[in-house]
This record gives sequence, C-alpha cells and structure tokens, in this order.
Amino acid sequence: MAERNIWVGFDLGGTKMLSKVYDAKFQELGSERKKTKGHLGADVGIDRITDTIRAALEIAKVEASQIAGIGIGCPGPIDMEKGVILDPPNLGWGEVPMRKRLEKAFDCPVSVANDVDVGVYGEYRFGAAQGVRTVLGVFPGTGIGGGCIYDGNILRGARCSCVEIGHIPVVPDGPLCGCGQRGCLEAVASRLAVSASVAKSAYRGEAPHVQKVAGTDLSQIRSSTLANAIKAGDKVVEKILRDAATHIGTALAGVVHLISPDVVVLGGGLIEAMPDLFVKEVMSSARSRVMAAYRDTFKVVEAKLGDDAGVLGAAAWAEKTFNGESVKNHKDGS
Amino acid sequence: MAERNIWVGFDLGGTKMLSKVYDAKFQELGSERKKTKGHLGADVGIDRITDTIRAALEIAKVEASQIAGIGIGCPGPIDMEKGVILDPPNLGWGEVPMRKRLEKAFDCPVSVANDVDVGVYGEYRFGAAQGVRTVLGVFPGTGIGGGCIYDGNILRGARCSCVEIGHIPVVPDGPLCGCGQRGCLEAVASRLAVSASVAKSAYRGEAPHVQKVAGTDLSQIRSSTLANAIKAGDKVVEKILRDAATHIGTALAGVVHLISPDVVVLGGGLIEAMPDLFVKEVMSSARSRVMAAYRDTFKVVEAKLGDDAGVLGAAAWAEKTFNGESVKNHKDGS
Repeated sequence: MAERNIWVGFDLGGTKMLSKVYDAKFQELGSERKKTKGHLGADVGIDRITDTIRAALEIAKVEASQIAGIGIGCPGPIDMEKGVILDPPNLGWGEVPMRKRLEKAFDCPVSVANDVDVGVYGEYRFGAAQGVRTVLGVFPGTGIGGGCIYDGNILRGARCSCVEIGHIPVVPDGPLCGCGQRGCLEAVASRLAVSASVAKSAYRGEAPHVQKVAGTDLSQIRSSTLANAIKAGDKVVEKILRDAATHIGTALAGVVHLISPDVVVLGGGLIEAMPDLFVKEVMSSARSRVMAAYRDTFKVVEAKLGDDAGVLGAAAWAEKTFNGESVKNHKDGS
Repeated sequence: MAERNIWVGFDLGGTKMLSKVYDAKFQELGSERKKTKGHLGADVGIDRITDTIRAALEIAKVEASQIAGIGIGCPGPIDMEKGVILDPPNLGWGEVPMRKRLEKAFDCPVSVANDVDVGVYGEYRFGAAQGVRTVLGVFPGTGIGGGCIYDGNILRGARCSCVEIGHIPVVPDGPLCGCGQRGCLEAVASRLAVSASVAKSAYRGEAPHVQKVAGTDLSQIRSSTLANAIKAGDKVVEKILRDAATHIGTALAGVVHLISPDVVVLGGGLIEAMPDLFVKEVMSSARSRVMAAYRDTFKVVEAKLGDDAGVLGAAAWAEKTFNGESVKNHKDGS
C-alpha cells in the first residue's frame, strides 16, 4: 500500500476553481483549474470539483490512495466542525455537506474552511507573516475579506468565519453597505466601491485616462486600470485610492485595540497593483488612530503568495488539521 | 515534605489589594485585604503584597511550602511572558518585575496577568461563562475594562492585555477621551462618564434625588446612588444610563463582527446595581447593529462572582499556567 503523504489544496471561487497537488514538503506536483459555473447548482458543482482534483492528481502522477488529506477553501460562512458550507454568496448552493461529499469521492480526510481564512493561513505558513502569534489578513475585492490566524490556528468565533473586517463602521452615516448598515469599510474601500467612485469621476471628465481605456462602466475598471491611470496622471484616481487606504487604516486601528495583531497582511488584486501606496497609507492611517502604546506593535505588509495563498493555505490547513504533530516539527525546524 | 496543592490568588487594585488562599478544588481557605497605598512606591507596594499573602496564609493555616502557585492580577499592561507589570495607571510604579519578586518571597511559581483578564477568566472557570469557546468581558468603571478568554486561554495580542474595548469609537467627534481620541466608548459610557452627566443634570435641577443625596460632586455619585435615583423617579438618570448601555451595545456589535464571542459578561459596580437595565439594553443595541447572520450568535449576561472574579480567576490562571493537565481533567469532568 502506498504511503499517504500527498496534500491536495482546493480554492473554490465564485468564477473559477483551482486545485493543486503537493508533496509532504509542499512542493507543487500538479495543478488544474476550471470555471466554477455556480449557477448549475451544488451537485454539478461538486462533480466539477472532484473532476478538477482528479485532473490535478493525474498531472501530478499521484493516485488517490496516496492522499493524506484534502483542504478546501470556500467563500462565505462555514461550519468548520461539520465541514458544511452555509449558503455561500455568489453561488446560491444553500447548505452543502462538502466534507462528506469529498471524503466519499476520495476516501481520505477533508478539511473545509473559509477561503480568506486559508489564504491568511497560507501567508502565515509560507508567505508574508511566518512565525508570529497574531496575523490579520485584509483582502479588498467585491467586498473586503478578513481572516485571522492566532497561535497557529484559524481564529474561530461563535459563527465561523468571524473576522468581518468589511463591516467595521468607518464613515458615520456613510454610503449604504450590502449588509444593510451605513458607512461600513467595504462600502467605502472595497475594489467595487473604489471602481464606482472612479467611474463617477470618469463620467465627470476628471479621470481622462480611465475614460479612454475603460469608459464609465465600473466592471471594466480593473486594478491594473487604476494603477495605470495614476501613472498617467489621473490625480483624482490617486486621491480615491489613498482615501480607501486611509479608511482601511481606520478600521485596522479598531482591530489593533481589540486583538493587537503582530502583522497585518494586505492582499488581493488592488493591493498587488499598488502595493506601496496601500502599505504606506494603511500603516500611517492606523498609526495615527491607535493609542500611543500600540503605535509600534504592528507591521503592515503586502501578501507574498498571490493566487497561491488560498490553495496552498487550504492544503496546509488540512495537514495542520490531520497531522498536527508533523506541523509542529515543521515549525520548530523552520 | 508537604504536598504543593494550594493556589493563592491576588487582586491588586488602585485603592485596595485582596488575597485569597484556595485548596486544589478552589474552596476558599482564607482571605486578607489591605489598602494599596500606591503612592508609597513599588518597593513598599510589594512588601504590602507579600504581607497580605502571608496574613491570608496564616488565616488559612497553610505553610508557604504548600503553595503550588500564586496568581496575581494587576492593572494596566503586563508582559505575561516575563511577569513584569508595565507602568500601571493609578499606581505610578513604572516597570516592576512582579513575578521575580514574588517567586523570591514565596519560593513557588507566580503568574502575572491583567486584572480584567483574570476577572473574565474567573467568570469563564467558575461563573457566568463556563464551557464556551469565546468569552468577552466588559467592566465599566473609571474607564471600561475589557478582556477575552478564547479556547480556555487569555487572548493575547502583540501587546498584552489587548482587548481595549474602552477605546472603540462610538460617537463621531464625541467627548475627549483620556487616550487623546474623541468619542471612545469609555468617554461616554464608563461609570465616570455617567456620573459626570448625572452631576450636570443634578446641577440643572433635573435629578432631584441625586442632588439631595450626593449634590453635584461626581465623586459622590456611586452606582447605588444611580440605582436609587431611578427608583425614586429621576427620569434623566435612567435616560443617561440607558444611553450608556446603548453605546456599550454599539461597541459590542463591532466586537461581534471581529471575534464573534459566544458570551458577553458585563460586570462591575454599575452593572451589579442595575443588571436588568444593562443586560437588556446592551443586548438589544448590539443585536440591532450586527448583520442578520450574527443576531442570534451571542448572549449578554451579568457577571456572577462579583469582587471574587479577579482573585479567584488569578488563582485559577496560576493553576492553568503551571498545571495545565489537571485543568484539562477538571474541564473534562465538569
């Protein structure tokens, strides 16, 4: 019988899914991606997930019987104890017993966690935040994802995942948020909120570069569009992005007063396109808003792993979950 | 040689100090209290601490050689790893190597932690919040103390103790806080803030009961004064207290979005004097401000242990620190 020493990571996104196969030292052996096609429902979705994993295994030349565990990161709230995804946004699948379905398909242990949480765990294990007690991850996208690793584990609340940094209020009576409140961080600083502000400026003729390459359709305004517009001299775009970063810093100050993270990792496309602007502005905004005693207690850094954070973090979380001892050795040795 | 199975708790306050001696099952064997007299300096302070412990041991008929560990809760930030108190407010002692000094005096292990943290730990082990994953404690006094027990341990940040719930902003451009910011929770909802508002109302003749028993000196307006004034019909006092509780609920909503506690314990004199008003108002305020998915994930309860929480929690934290295994058995058995 083959030794079970292969870890499989899976990142389930709203538009695409990605699986990677790793050896015991987390060297990548194979990789496969597909479109998610969430609208086809949960049963088709799970078939597509298992097909993607099988294809990645084939590329890696690995048998299912060699898998020590599969880790999957999924959007939205998760019941981590039961391995059930709870009505993920953008998928509309309702409750899905993900662990049970995948364990049946591959006859190996499966861990299910929130996609942002495993992304932050990836950065903690292999990326920008190794070896510290408390890591906060902040990932601006359509919303603003947050996750926290504390003492080597995903921080869990009564409801997992719990770090709803996108819903910290930062602008009193500010714009409506998708959650029904006003002035939440994600209503003023997500990629979506930023794009909407920039589109408005483009419409008013204040952002000629954006208008030329993307018009006023906010879905056409990508992170790279924004970075290029700043380089091309669209001053208002820079102002909008600095304001967004300042708001993230305001929210971060509140988090520092509550859980006092050692390292704050900023990630996602918006950050990757303009890392210096964000790291600097978030840091100075947060520093100016925390009590003096906390001013030098945290660092703000750019994520290192890009799209790999989620899939690698999911695989490593499976290892942590099913193989705690070897993780301990790994950490001691690193 | 006597078996070391006695745990000693110590609560170091700004005005008084309290020591209690417990057997292995945390039954109280003896107790002693003294005035702190912090102005006499750290050296005199530590002598007073050791005298108080010795007196409590004598009352309990216990030898120092029987002590398994001493736990001490101290105000302000603590370096828990080193057992050093860092310039506690109201004492002005600067940095004091508390663990080293007490270990020398009693020749046994000593754990040093923040007074609010050990108070919340006491409620987690023996009081209002047993057996849950995440407990948040909120104790309004001169400021508003906060502490968190997570997975059976005091939650630690880069700077201990980290749960600065008193400095969550709740009123934009609100009153100045002692920390230099504006509109922090403790600037509008501490016992001190409440007393100041009530004194102002008394001066204006709006709170006749308060004016009669306490005049307009806010240091004379005690929690019991407030509770009695409400019973006597001082409507404005009730309004001021409900507003304070509403603000605590606002801050709590932010905490729910970040760490999603299972149980929130409200404690301290203000709460003890008016538990129903506070529990109800804090709960409804927080519920109305959290996202729908979190509305039924937390409970707000009144602390059960009163003044004992700190001293008992400190002793139990010493047991947890130096005797982890037996705590585990205790928990499994409870």
